Amino acid sequence: MAEATGKTVRVGMVGVGSRGTHLLQTLLQIPGVAVPAIGDINQEHAARAQDLVEQATGRRPEAYTRDERHFEALCAREDLDAVVCATSWQWHTPVMLAAMRARKYGGTEVPAGLTLDELWALVRTSEATGMPCMMLENVNYFQNVLALLRMVREGAFGELLHCEAGYQHDCRFLLFTEDGKLTWRGEHYARLNGNLYPTHPIGPIAWWLDINRGDRFVSLSSVSSPAEGMRRYAAAKFGADHPLAKRDYAHGDVNTTLLRTARGRTVTLYFDCCTPRPYDLIFRLQGTQGIYSGTLDQIYLEGVSPQSDQWEPFGPYQERYAHPLWKDLEAEARRNGGHGGCDYLVMYEFVQAVRRQTPTPQDVYDAACWSAVVPLSVESVAKGGAQIEFPDFTRGQWKTAPRLPITGA
Amino acid sequence: MAEATGKTVRVGMVGVGSRGTHLLQTLLQIPGVAVPAIGDINQEHAARAQDLVEQATGRRPEAYTRDERHFEALCAREDLDAVVCATSWQWHTPVMLAAMRARKYGGTEVPAGLTLDELWALVRTSEATGMPCMMLENVNYFQNVLALLRMVREGAFGELLHCEAGYQHDCRFLLFTEDGKLTWRGEHYARLNGNLYPTHPIGPIAWWLDINRGDRFVSLSSVSSPAEGMRRYAAAKFGADHPLAKRDYAHGDVNTTLLRTARGRTVTLYFDCCTPRPYDLIFRLQGTQGIYSGTLDQIYLEGVSPQSDQWEPFGPYQERYAHPLWKDLEAEARRNGGHGGCDYLVMYEFVQAVRRQTPTPQDVYDAACWSAVVPLSVESVAKGGAQIEFPDFTRGQWKTAPRLPITGA
Repeated sequence: MAEATGKTVRVGMVGVGSRGTHLLQTLLQIPGVAVPAIGDINQEHAARAQDLVEQATGRRPEAYTRDERHFEALCAREDLDAVVCATSWQWHTPVMLAAMRARKYGGTEVPAGLTLDELWALVRTSEATGMPCMMLENVNYFQNVLALLRMVREGAFGELLHCEAGYQHDCRFLLFTEDGKLTWRGEHYARLNGNLYPTHPIGPIAWWLDINRGDRFVSLSSVSSPAEGMRRYAAAKFGADHPLAKRDYAHGDVNTTLLRTARGRTVTLYFDCCTPRPYDLIFRLQGTQGIYSGTLDQIYLEGVSPQSDQWEPFGPYQERYAHPLWKDLEAEARRNGGHGGCDYLVMYEFVQAVRRQTPTPQDVYDAACWSAVVPLSVESVAKGGAQIEFPDFTRGQWKTAPRLPITGA
Repeated sequence: MAEATGKTVRVGMVGVGSRGTHLLQTLLQIPGVAVPAIGDINQEHAARAQDLVEQATGRRPEAYTRDERHFEALCAREDLDAVVCATSWQWHTPVMLAAMRARKYGGTEVPAGLTLDELWALVRTSEATGMPCMMLENVNYFQNVLALLRMVREGAFGELLHCEAGYQHDCRFLLFTEDGKLTWRGEHYARLNGNLYPTHPIGPIAWWLDINRGDRFVSLSSVSSPAEGMRRYAAAKFGADHPLAKRDYAHGDVNTTLLRTARGRTVTLYFDCCTPRPYDLIFRLQGTQGIYSGTLDQIYLEGVSPQSDQWEPFGPYQERYAHPLWKDLEAEARRNGGHGGCDYLVMYEFVQAVRRQTPTPQDVYDAACWSAVVPLSVESVAKGGAQIEFPDFTRGQWKTAPRLPITGA
């Protein structure tokens, strides 16, 4: 396997639909990456990905398209260092398990799994094989998120007290096909009521709060509003008599989840993808010395901000506290990557960990912990908002695990 | 008693400190109001209030300053139609009970009570005496709040799903005296951990959601962040060795409470008064057709707003959906009242109900329900965020009680 900086990192890519194709393109723009294998049951998608790789590298990767389990043969190849997975949600865990068992680094789109059994399987398999598994949570690499991480570490907010974030994004268009069926994503919404997409908001918060590295989530409570969005959207799109406009959907439109940590800090999470609304991740970060609002992109720090208890723009702070990764890679990130550059950075970090054979910055405990909000919130909603205990995937290691280092490229 | 429009309304005023003096001044600016009696154990405050009334009306009111129970003699006077209370929190319920038992309309500052026993006593006493008790929740009369109420009624938001609001206001200066003691408010913060000031945010939400008039709160869950703010503030103000800088305080700095209604709608409430932060009541109002954000003072309505899923300014909507009270009284409200005019409007509404001998727009069930978040959140926080059942103060009447009418002056 590649062992030193400069060595080529060989990645097998499983799932090259819309998101997977984008991640593949990002991957191909990182220096020193080869893609010898592509897996997807959709042959057109696989061929499109083969073309992309061939155009970029001159070598056409082998395709694994035979059936839903063909990724196992891909993972078993001897000429791979890592497997990246961007399938639909229910295949993330099976692909990662196969990758780790075949001694490959695993990198998966979010969420890493949908059930506690899946998430424990990821943890146990990573521990048993010694292979890292990184959930490719890109929002952790937003420019403001990483500058705020530096500010937290340098004490700008004092002791942290509370954070709030949400995946609030009108995604109704992703839930139905044009010809009147549910997409795979829509199927999940139709059967599960809870926070089905927690990792974008909780990932940055977990880094700010040193979750799994000095603190941990101990419990949550979750409630959902009525489920109106999907039925109404289907009625508008397909007509009031269409079966999709008349059926029931499990997923309450606005889900709110409250979490507590071992050190007593609190977190509010929203999941709101079935209503007409502007995009807003919220990102409230609050400590004894001040508060940041992502909704406003403004900040207030006591004794620092010019006017008492008045917001000021965050821009200058983002520059002053620029994270070394952004200092080193801003040009490449902006030129190449989606989502404001963070897709490039998360993929870059994954590739570098593989190249150096080091732990990934988001480890398997993070993947399990951040994704666990899915099954735990579903359980809490079903029990009328009852407090649900949060499993400690680290089994006590959170007390002594060192903080995530703040380092450059 | 005064029975028709135009008759003078005679109000006894109990508690004329900072807030009470302001309410008294507001009261004196409403046409047709007399104030024959003032109650306060602070003789200077009482004398100041007597002067104010005498200057405004030519008649000097009688003062009740003998002891903490002297308000009972005030309430018993034959020449009063109503008693308004702006004492410290723990006297609101006793004053209201005395007023109603003496057949006076009661109007009280927020919260109406601090314990479930107090709140049930208010409900039972109002029912037994037939006397209304109105909590003078002024935020319900904000211009945006009332325009939004009209929009809700006219279906602009579709079916309501979720609301969020918070009392988020750096009030640390109200918790300590200049000479190094806790104020009465600070004493409450020192002993109670929960949402101690819920009525400003929950009042408008309760009107939007028809709480007690078609829906009701059925349960809540509440968590608090660590308690750091008061100790740190005391250390900065009085020195690190001062006893107030070394003691423990019960009140967690940021309290978050989640409520559910019988119809499945959800509400998030914040209480955040011990941290350095800009003022923000949040006021998120969300339905199947759109969303309003008070933080941004922007709105999005599907099919109405010009750009898909993009905010637009709320100002034009506030004008188009102006509440009749604001249409009728905007000039007086702005000229006379505090908090942008809403102090005038809430007092005006109270006086009009007394004058007309009609029910008050906020009734005793609202007072009890909105204030009940105090003891219920304290109980939930103490139980680690457990779900707590919300009492139905209306005992079933919420199912048939008519919606609050939208009427002018």
